[in-house]
Amino acid sequence: MILEQAILNIKKGRKSEFESAMAQAVPIISSSPGFLGLEVRPCLENTSRYLLLVKWERLEDHTEGFRNSPRYQEWRTLLHHFYEPFPVVEHYGDPLPS
Amino acid sequence: MILEQAILNIKKGRKSEFESAMAQAVPIISSSPGFLGLEVRPCLENTSRYLLLVKWERLEDHTEGFRNSPRYQEWRTLLHHFYEPFPVVEHYGDPLPS
Repeated sequence: MILEQAILNIKKGRKSEFESAMAQAVPIISSSPGFLGLEVRPCLENTSRYLLLVKWERLEDHTEGFRNSPRYQEWRTLLHHFYEPFPVVEHYGDPLPS
Repeated sequence: MILEQAILNIKKGRKSEFESAMAQAVPIISSSPGFLGLEVRPCLENTSRYLLLVKWERLEDHTEGFRNSPRYQEWRTLLHHFYEPFPVVEHYGDPLPS
């Protein structure tokens, strides 16, 4: 399992619109092959910030499958205009043994 | 549940030492009241980077309980010298409904 991670900074005054748009966008990404789950959590220290965590079976399910699909165009249209700055997206592998 | 999040950037050439130290440090934080779970995942895009996610019952279990305990001194001694720059730690609340 691969964990996609991004810190989302939302433009001033747009939080509730962003939250509605995200609720519309979740079913779009959820139907993508290899999608295993998503959560968006509000930051306690910075109220215009959210943590996005998306679980994918394989890296390519996100970087190729989703991003090259028409679903990604819908996701972009719904969400990308809320971000400032545009988020850096990274991927993380299986947890270290502990 | 509160999710603590930090991006850990490890000094050049110190990765395997860091991973051993983290394996020693996990039981220390795990015995802290309110601790619910921890994962450390390696970044796929940047091999000296890790994502730390720690689940706590309440924010204060981390910011007061753990950080004011002798356990935190052990955690610091084991881990803090590996980081460059020193990580920004943030806390995130319950996920948005979807």
